[in-house]
Amino acid sequence: MNLPLGYAYAATYAGIRQVEKDDLALIVTGLPASAAAVFTQNRVEAAPVKLCRRHLKLSGGLVGAILVNAGNANCATRTGDAVALATSKATAKLLKLPVSQVLPASTGVIGVELDPRRIIDALPRLVSGLGTDRFDDAARAIMTTDLVPKTAFAETSLRRGVVRAAGMTKGSGMIQPRMATTLGFVMTDASVPPAQLRAMLKRAVERSYHRLSVDGDTSTNDTLVLLANGASGVRPDPRELPKVEERITQVMESLAQAIARDGEGARKFITIVVSGTSNNDGAARMARAIANSPLVKTAVAGSDPNWGRILSAAGNAGVAFDPSKTDVYMQNVMVCRGGLAAPFSEPELKRKLGAPECEIRVRVRAKGKGTARFWTCDLTEGYIRINASYRT
Amino acid sequence: MNLPLGYAYAATYAGIRQVEKDDLALIVTGLPASAAAVFTQNRVEAAPVKLCRRHLKLSGGLVGAILVNAGNANCATRTGDAVALATSKATAKLLKLPVSQVLPASTGVIGVELDPRRIIDALPRLVSGLGTDRFDDAARAIMTTDLVPKTAFAETSLRRGVVRAAGMTKGSGMIQPRMATTLGFVMTDASVPPAQLRAMLKRAVERSYHRLSVDGDTSTNDTLVLLANGASGVRPDPRELPKVEERITQVMESLAQAIARDGEGARKFITIVVSGTSNNDGAARMARAIANSPLVKTAVAGSDPNWGRILSAAGNAGVAFDPSKTDVYMQNVMVCRGGLAAPFSEPELKRKLGAPECEIRVRVRAKGKGTARFWTCDLTEGYIRINASYRT
Repeated sequence: MNLPLGYAYAATYAGIRQVEKDDLALIVTGLPASAAAVFTQNRVEAAPVKLCRRHLKLSGGLVGAILVNAGNANCATRTGDAVALATSKATAKLLKLPVSQVLPASTGVIGVELDPRRIIDALPRLVSGLGTDRFDDAARAIMTTDLVPKTAFAETSLRRGVVRAAGMTKGSGMIQPRMATTLGFVMTDASVPPAQLRAMLKRAVERSYHRLSVDGDTSTNDTLVLLANGASGVRPDPRELPKVEERITQVMESLAQAIARDGEGARKFITIVVSGTSNNDGAARMARAIANSPLVKTAVAGSDPNWGRILSAAGNAGVAFDPSKTDVYMQNVMVCRGGLAAPFSEPELKRKLGAPECEIRVRVRAKGKGTARFWTCDLTEGYIRINASYRT
Repeated sequence: MNLPLGYAYAATYAGIRQVEKDDLALIVTGLPASAAAVFTQNRVEAAPVKLCRRHLKLSGGLVGAILVNAGNANCATRTGDAVALATSKATAKLLKLPVSQVLPASTGVIGVELDPRRIIDALPRLVSGLGTDRFDDAARAIMTTDLVPKTAFAETSLRRGVVRAAGMTKGSGMIQPRMATTLGFVMTDASVPPAQLRAMLKRAVERSYHRLSVDGDTSTNDTLVLLANGASGVRPDPRELPKVEERITQVMESLAQAIARDGEGARKFITIVVSGTSNNDGAARMARAIANSPLVKTAVAGSDPNWGRILSAAGNAGVAFDPSKTDVYMQNVMVCRGGLAAPFSEPELKRKLGAPECEIRVRVRAKGKGTARFWTCDLTEGYIRINASYRT
C-alpha cells in the first residue's frame, strides 16, 4: 500500500519523556491541506486543543503542519497556552507557514509544566529530518503507554486516478472517545474542500472512534485531524466522494480497533454488535454500556460465558427494550434466547472464549432496524498494574 | 444500641448456594408495617422486584414479612415469576398473612433457574427459628461476595418515647445504585404512615445509596425496603419527623458506606466531596464521574497523587464548570489550585495515601452552593480476580 502523496514526516527525541525514545513528531504537507478535526468533549481542555480550534477558525480550515509531542499533555499547567503558541510559531517560522496553519497536539501526563525550549531546540533537526518515508517513525514517536504503533492505509481508484489515505493514532488508556479520542492523524492526497471534508469526518468518526472504549475515561487531549492535500491531482467527482469516504472510514476503523487491541493490560479484543433497537443511536448506547461494564470485561478475561452480566449491562443503557425478546451470542454461540439461558456446552464455549478475539452479539427481536458495532478489550490485572504506577 | 421492637428474624441454609452457609433469611413484623421501597432502574428487572412492586400496590404499602434468598438472583429465568409467587405464598400461609404482605428479594447469579422446593421445604424450619435476636444471622445469610455482614443502628428520643432503627444490607460488586442498590432492609419501630415514609425514603436514598458506586454496574435486583411497624407505640409528632428521618438516613448512610468499604477487591474506602457547583445535582454528577473513573481508582490503589486524572474525570461529568477556578485536595493536602499543580510534598502525600481511608475533595470556586458527598473504593487486582471467576 502506498502512502498518500505530498506529505512528509519526522520524529526526534526532544527530552520530554524520561526514557530516551522519540517524543516529538512532525507531519507536513507540501500543498496546504483542507482540514477537518474533532476534539475532546471533556470540560477540561488541554492548551493545544484550544489552540487547534482557534487556528482552524483563523486559517479557514487550511493546515500546513501538525506538531505532536508525547510524554506531556500540556494540560492544566500555568504556561500551557504560551507553550502551545510558542512551539507552533517556531514551527511556522521554520516551515515558512502562517502560524494559523500549524496544529499542535500533546499527549502524556496532565498537570506538569512543559518546557517549550526542549521542543524549540529540537525543531531544526526535526525539520531537517523530514522525509516522505518516515511515517512509521512519526507513528512511533506519539506513543505513550501503547505497546505497538498504530497505523492504517487504504487506496481507491477513481475515474481520474488513484487516491490514497493513511492514518496513525495513539492511545491505550483514558479511552472513551466522545468527539474523537486521544490523538489520530489521517492524511489523504485526494482533493476535498473543507466543508465536505468536515461532513465526511463527522460520519466516519461516528463509525470508528465513537465506537471505542477501553476504560470509559475521556481524555483532555483527544484530537483527531483529517487532512486532504490534493497532491494526487485527483479531485473526486461528487458521485465518487462516498468511495473516498468509505476508504477514510476504513482507515479510521482500523485505527480505533488498534487502540482497543492495545488497551492497557488487554489480552483480548472484544467486538460488540447490537441489532434490533429502534435506531442506531440506541444500539450504540447499549453497545457502549456493555463495553464499559467492568463485569462483562472481567468475565471475558476469565473466559466465563456469563451472559447475565451482558443482559444486565444492556439494561443499564437507558434504552427501552424488551429483555424477554433479546438473544445474546458469544463467539457465535447462542447463550441467551429471549432473555433466558439457551442450552450450550459451557466447556466448549469457555475454550472458544480463550481466543484473542471475542465477539458479543445482542439481538433485540423487535421491529427496529438500529444496529451498532463497538470495540473494547478485556479488563485484566495488567490494567491495574499499569495505572497504579503510571505517573510515579 | 437496641433493635427496633416488634421484629423477628431467621436464617437457614436451604441449599441454594453451593457452600453450606445460610442462604435464606426472613424478616417478620408482628404488627403490619408501613412500607416504602425503591428498586433498580435497570431495564432488566428480576422476578422478585416485579412481584414486590405488585404486592406493595395491592397491600396499600403494608408489609408483614420479607423473604430473602442469596445465591440466585431469580432473574432472566423461565420460571422466575412463578418461583417468586410460590415462595411468597408459602411464606404467607405459614405466617397467616395475605400474600400481598410478603415481599420477596433475591441476590446472586443471573440466568440460572431457582428451584422453589428448596425454599418451600426450608420455610417451616425458618419460621420456627424466628427470634428477635437473630438480626445478625439474617444479615449474614443475605451475603454473596461480601466479606463482612453490613448492619447499622440508630435511636432517638422523642417527646412520647424512644424510637429505634436498624438496617442490614449486602453488596460488593455490580454496585451503582440508581434507585437503590442491591438489597437493603431498614426497620424502625416508629409509627409513620406510608405516604410520609415514602417521602422520607426518597430523600434518605438520595443522601445514601445514590451516593455509592463500586464498579458502575447497576444490578437487576436492587431492592431497598424501609419498614415502620409502630411497635414502639410512638407516633412522632409532625415536627419530630425530621429527627426520625435523620436517624434513618444515618443508618442508610452507614450501610451504603459499608458496601463501598467491602467493594470487591477494595483495599481503600474513598470519600469524594464536591462543592461549589451551581446545584447539588451537578456536584453529585461530578462526584459520581470521579468515583467511576478506573484511572482515579487505580491511582488511589497505587497511592499516586495523580490529580490530573481527578480533574479530567470531573471534566467528563457533563457539568459546566471552570477548571481554572477549581481546587483539588487529597487527604486534606491541596494538590491542585485553580486547575494547576499546587506545591506539595509527593513522598509525604504518598505515605498519607497509604491509609485505608482516602478523601478526595474538589472545590469549584464559583458562586454555586451545590455540594455532594460520594463513596467508592479503590480498584485493585482483587476485583479482577473475583470477577474473572465468580460464576464458574
